[in-house]
Amino acid sequence: MPRHTLSELARHVGGKVIGDDAVEIRGVASIEEAGPAEIAFLAHPRYRGYLATVRAGALIISRNIPIRSLPKAGKNFIQVAQPYVAFAKILQLFNPPPSYGGEVSSLAAIDPTAVLAERVTVFPQVYVGKGVRVQRGTVLFPGVFLGDGVEVGEDCVLHPRVTVREGCHIGNRVILHAGVVIGADGFGYAGEGRERVKIPQIGIVVIEDDVEIGANTTVDRATLGRTVIGRGTKVDNLVQIAHNVIVGQHSVIAAQAGIAGSTKIGNEVVLAGQVGVVNHVEIGDKAKIGPQSGIPRSVPPGALLSAGLEAQPHQQWLRVMTLLPRLPKLWGAVQRLEAKMARLVSREARGKKSHARRQRDL
Amino acid sequence: MPRHTLSELARHVGGKVIGDDAVEIRGVASIEEAGPAEIAFLAHPRYRGYLATVRAGALIISRNIPIRSLPKAGKNFIQVAQPYVAFAKILQLFNPPPSYGGEVSSLAAIDPTAVLAERVTVFPQVYVGKGVRVQRGTVLFPGVFLGDGVEVGEDCVLHPRVTVREGCHIGNRVILHAGVVIGADGFGYAGEGRERVKIPQIGIVVIEDDVEIGANTTVDRATLGRTVIGRGTKVDNLVQIAHNVIVGQHSVIAAQAGIAGSTKIGNEVVLAGQVGVVNHVEIGDKAKIGPQSGIPRSVPPGALLSAGLEAQPHQQWLRVMTLLPRLPKLWGAVQRLEAKMARLVSREARGKKSHARRQRDL
Amino acid sequence: MPRHTLSELARHVGGKVIGDDAVEIRGVASIEEAGPAEIAFLAHPRYRGYLATVRAGALIISRNIPIRSLPKAGKNFIQVAQPYVAFAKILQLFNPPPSYGGEVSSLAAIDPTAVLAERVTVFPQVYVGKGVRVQRGTVLFPGVFLGDGVEVGEDCVLHPRVTVREGCHIGNRVILHAGVVIGADGFGYAGEGRERVKIPQIGIVVIEDDVEIGANTTVDRATLGRTVIGRGTKVDNLVQIAHNVIVGQHSVIAAQAGIAGSTKIGNEVVLAGQVGVVNHVEIGDKAKIGPQSGIPRSVPPGALLSAGLEAQPHQQWLRVMTLLPRLPKLWGAVQRLEAKMARLVSREARGKKSHARRQRDL
Repeated sequence: MPRHTLSELARHVGGKVIGDDAVEIRGVASIEEAGPAEIAFLAHPRYRGYLATVRAGALIISRNIPIRSLPKAGKNFIQVAQPYVAFAKILQLFNPPPSYGGEVSSLAAIDPTAVLAERVTVFPQVYVGKGVRVQRGTVLFPGVFLGDGVEVGEDCVLHPRVTVREGCHIGNRVILHAGVVIGADGFGYAGEGRERVKIPQIGIVVIEDDVEIGANTTVDRATLGRTVIGRGTKVDNLVQIAHNVIVGQHSVIAAQAGIAGSTKIGNEVVLAGQVGVVNHVEIGDKAKIGPQSGIPRSVPPGALLSAGLEAQPHQQWLRVMTLLPRLPKLWGAVQRLEAKMARLVSREARGKKSHARRQRDL
Repeated sequence: MPRHTLSELARHVGGKVIGDDAVEIRGVASIEEAGPAEIAFLAHPRYRGYLATVRAGALIISRNIPIRSLPKAGKNFIQVAQPYVAFAKILQLFNPPPSYGGEVSSLAAIDPTAVLAERVTVFPQVYVGKGVRVQRGTVLFPGVFLGDGVEVGEDCVLHPRVTVREGCHIGNRVILHAGVVIGADGFGYAGEGRERVKIPQIGIVVIEDDVEIGANTTVDRATLGRTVIGRGTKVDNLVQIAHNVIVGQHSVIAAQAGIAGSTKIGNEVVLAGQVGVVNHVEIGDKAKIGPQSGIPRSVPPGALLSAGLEAQPHQQWLRVMTLLPRLPKLWGAVQRLEAKMARLVSREARGKKSHARRQRDL
Repeated sequence: MPRHTLSELARHVGGKVIGDDAVEIRGVASIEEAGPAEIAFLAHPRYRGYLATVRAGALIISRNIPIRSLPKAGKNFIQVAQPYVAFAKILQLFNPPPSYGGEVSSLAAIDPTAVLAERVTVFPQVYVGKGVRVQRGTVLFPGVFLGDGVEVGEDCVLHPRVTVREGCHIGNRVILHAGVVIGADGFGYAGEGRERVKIPQIGIVVIEDDVEIGANTTVDRATLGRTVIGRGTKVDNLVQIAHNVIVGQHSVIAAQAGIAGSTKIGNEVVLAGQVGVVNHVEIGDKAKIGPQSGIPRSVPPGALLSAGLEAQPHQQWLRVMTLLPRLPKLWGAVQRLEAKMARLVSREARGKKSHARRQRDL
């Protein structure tokens, strides 16, 4: 179990100790549960109420919290510019990724033409196809399938039951969570009805370095060429990424979002949960799309879009839904009213004038 | 094959026989397909038309159907308060869960430190990690993965290719359908863009007793602490439950719903299909949320909310969608019209009065 | 590597060569990447700009492109009525499905009562239960699970980690992508809250000939009877098809769509991505439903419906969303305005008449 003094931790995250530098910390816990040997994280000023009762040995806080507001009695703090990042780094320090023994199970099925570098760990029930290459430090959990010709980089973790189909490339330090499917056939057919013909999907998927992909997410292989998930991009669970999609670098795609074929997602884009993006469009760099939004056309860089509908009380919603299709009619009614009103007002004005004239004429 | 007389079945479900008590029933079938040795279920008065042609040996019906409306000729009935519950119980009686032999396959990979209680059935291709404990009567189908330190209770069924990651706890009588992933890392990062840092997810998932989770659903482990699915809750296929979510007891979550991080779902809540709930909110006990609803804030107990949009003819919908963003403008136009109208009407009233005055003055 | 002259390819797809019949083609590539030994596909007149720079040995083009518009210099073409279908067929010609050796791995777990026809390929880590029958030419990739009594037809491909639960039937030439779950229990319970009772799901799933089902899609077994996916239907990734759903022939269901219990989908229906269809309704033949649409009631044949909301700039959307629940109020305001306007206008008309009368009477 690692132990660190508060001053060591502060140095690690570029922060400043307020209180006792020498207090020894052995782990991280939530603010509700942390004990005297643990450090916790005060995410937001509104949790400041907890300061009175918290039992944590120390707290990570933001520079935005004025020091004079911190209670004196026996509390210790690390104050940093980005407390959430500091929390993540301290959590990493106390919870280093598990190291695996570099053993290759005799209960795995590994083609003799596959090349596994040193310190690759292969659990039982793994399947490794012809000509596969896996670089050093990578871990293949039980049930991982690597199709013929797959390449996997260094220090990757492929969790249980991950499938990487033939020819796909996985970069370095990639994490694929359980049940992920990389390189299934794209959904492509030509023709209609009973004349429909399957379009062979002969491209691949390229997952660049430092990508993490959530459980049961699917990334389809390209028809021709490549489907790409760019460096540093993070994809949540149950996401669908169709054939020939290109996702840029350092983007974030939340759970159950879906991206249709050949669409390009820029760098540092954020797609919230259950977003749907149609095929053949582009989402510009740093665009942020709110939950459940439908994206039927390209989005410029930096756009902040929303479309989710907030749920309403059921009876009210039924009335709204009955009226919504009549919106064009309502719009027409208002336009007619505006025209009539304008005529009335102008006739009234003329009427007054003529009345005034008549008055004057009298 | 079990056989039961109609009177035995009626006793089993607390119902009353109308017709021949002694008729022997050997199974349950749909009302369209049931033959003379089978019992069927008349779900709703509107299916009463079937009574003329149904070949079933007996029918389960509601107390709400007046007896005099039932045809005389050779039909037998069990009349109960809750026919759907009676149907379920009789179906259970004729289709008891399969019993497994309690064999542990030599083709499974089981760590020597794992403890399997008596009558645990382990199929080939199962992986059981270090220190795992599995209680009696539980069945692990092919391809199940139990990470180090996992605990599984009594009489659970883990279907093929279920993954339970390290340290997670599964209660008693839990059913996990094929492809379920319990305890993948929550989707947590601090910082933006290329500075983004993974937050280690060191908590666990706790699945309480009598929970059932549908195929390919994912339940993420907590960052710190626990993600919880409460006793008796039923979760459908392809649902996403994020880190630190707490779902209460006896709730129902339909297919493809998604619940974002740290949200609390109460007891006996119903989420319909494709609902999305944002992070850090609370859904009160017995709230019911309609299909495809977005839930951007907390919902009080007992609320009945909807937000799904009914699909419209495409051209009409395009017109509505063009006008919807102009709703604020429309609203403004109506308010201006109301103001003008009020002025017109009051001027008209004054005009009449002054006219009347003039008339009187004449 | 197969090679074909342009005239051979034209004959194969019923097209006409413009240019050099004898040019030798060795593969298919995208219009951006094709070299002189490859044929590419000009999907749409708007890509005609590429004609100047394309390096492809030949191009598949539509009859709609006037020949005189094609540049003269050294370009060769196959002109056809349906270029996309021709592209698919030529792609198939150059990329025939891989043939498998018909070997049955000794590392698979196959019940002795199972019957595998000739030329069935079984990879390691496959599980085949009691009484299973698999017809000739079918391939079972690593991690495939076939429950007791499953039947699989000829020339199917079951990709890694596919689960087919007990008793289900798979037709001929069916492709099930990685992680597909066929025949998990339908989501059926009777009663409410803690009284909730599981309804045994004792029906099966029938997948007819020439169906393709995408990665991690789930198709639940019927309560009683059968869930059916009809001949030639194509289902994308992460789709949910609930118990007792009947999908007709040659329909297309895009990614992340969900179909609730007992619903009937007709022939040649198209459901776009993330569509949700409620239970117990019917979608008529050849209906097309736009992305993210909710379908709360039956849809007539041939209908073209939409409901997706286009994402809007966030602040504008917030205003729209605030006003949307007040649509009934707005509607009421407009109706009151219309009534007042009508009264005003008629009083004004009467006023004029009486004024005119007075004038005349003077």
